[in-house]
Amino acid sequence: MCQLLGMNCNVPTDICFSFEGFCARGGKTDEHRDGWGIAFFENKGCRIFIDVKPSIHSPIAELVRAYPIHSTHVISHIRKATQGEITLENCHPFRRELWGRYWVFAHNGDLPGFQARDTSFYQAVGNTDSENAFCYILEALKQNFPHCKPPLDEFYPVLNDVTKTLSTQGIFNYLLSDGDYFFAHCSTKLYYIVRQAPFAGAHLIDEDVTVDFSELTTPSDRVAVIATTPLTDNEVWTQIQPGELLVFQDGVPISPNSFTSQESMF
Amino acid sequence: MCQLLGMNCNVPTDICFSFEGFCARGGKTDEHRDGWGIAFFENKGCRIFIDVKPSIHSPIAELVRAYPIHSTHVISHIRKATQGEITLENCHPFRRELWGRYWVFAHNGDLPGFQARDTSFYQAVGNTDSENAFCYILEALKQNFPHCKPPLDEFYPVLNDVTKTLSTQGIFNYLLSDGDYFFAHCSTKLYYIVRQAPFAGAHLIDEDVTVDFSELTTPSDRVAVIATTPLTDNEVWTQIQPGELLVFQDGVPISPNSFTSQESMF
Repeated sequence: MCQLLGMNCNVPTDICFSFEGFCARGGKTDEHRDGWGIAFFENKGCRIFIDVKPSIHSPIAELVRAYPIHSTHVISHIRKATQGEITLENCHPFRRELWGRYWVFAHNGDLPGFQARDTSFYQAVGNTDSENAFCYILEALKQNFPHCKPPLDEFYPVLNDVTKTLSTQGIFNYLLSDGDYFFAHCSTKLYYIVRQAPFAGAHLIDEDVTVDFSELTTPSDRVAVIATTPLTDNEVWTQIQPGELLVFQDGVPISPNSFTSQESMF
Repeated sequence: MCQLLGMNCNVPTDICFSFEGFCARGGKTDEHRDGWGIAFFENKGCRIFIDVKPSIHSPIAELVRAYPIHSTHVISHIRKATQGEITLENCHPFRRELWGRYWVFAHNGDLPGFQARDTSFYQAVGNTDSENAFCYILEALKQNFPHCKPPLDEFYPVLNDVTKTLSTQGIFNYLLSDGDYFFAHCSTKLYYIVRQAPFAGAHLIDEDVTVDFSELTTPSDRVAVIATTPLTDNEVWTQIQPGELLVFQDGVPISPNSFTSQESMF
């Protein structure tokens, strides 16, 4: 299986601290050695770094740890291969364009035997269940909304339905974003924490590193970090309930009821 | 305007030497300061590094210069913005998936007023003429070959036709690849060189750097480097003729006549 890391904020923030602990699980404190990747949105733009090397040995991961890229929507993944060889095309996150936006997806779990059948618009390049599931989601979205991105209250039920269908095929924890919407689905295991004023210190589980967020933030900053298991040992992380599809906005999960009348920002 | 750099080889090769000289044009020896990018294919897998910083100041370009990534198909670009702001989504190369392959595209030139009209399958994320032209090419390919990638002898005339159409709109030098096929189109200015045994030394124009390829190669290696203007001052570069769409394979341009009976490798 794999592990997920996501970040959603109300102002562009670097993920260096969380990524430091997460990275250690890619071969040092845990066994997720079969590649890794991270996607940063900067408005509509998106850059993805991927590598087949374990994150603890990858020069590209070293760059990401050392070079603070500020982003409001980040999705990262370390891989322990279940389906698909250890190749670049099988590294998460995956990316496709839909409605003139880049969509990025990373998956933790296993969907034995799942194959996307309708590939009118999207086809997997590699041979993971994860990329096939991503294409399946995008096909469903494109077929429901052929021309443009719908507001969140129309988008959510469609994504929720296709997620439930896929969840019947196995374990399906995932993160999905286009740099505007940010979704986190828990099938078995996924946690989050919201950091906001008053900020305090945090200490990583996987590395002996502490950061005092009060020195790095302004009082209005808000950051949600989502991870397969908690990354710090002195903060309280919230477990997302199995079957729950959360929407994060401006660094906080919002209730499906709260966006029924919301308009899309695009 | 911008500059292009491409590489096509018969064995995975690093582009560090050529990229060193090319990078210098992103703010040191030339004025292409508005972002840069590079795509490496590793079989079907593809990774793209992009940055809005000038390539001479970008920590990510520094990584690419220092960390030899071996690839058979590479496309790189340094930008001097004509259309579209200096944002991440406007950095080349652009990438989309078609027929279960990643396609990568970079453009040098300017297509004033061109807007892709049919966006059934592909839509630009940024607002450059270049990304719109790329989407237009992919739409044409998808509509001509809806289900799977055709052999080169069927593919080439369609690409050539859509390229000629786009060329009527302005200047349209480009590089296009899926990690299997590799195309270089010259509208006004594009050069290439084929390096093969017996290998010799090469000296960059933009940096005082020399490399002796005979020390780094085996006799069967063959590498084609394609660039907007020659990168070395002691080798003979061939100018591609305006209007010519070249196909590179295993480090050498192949004639359209030579692949009339060739089967696709995929």
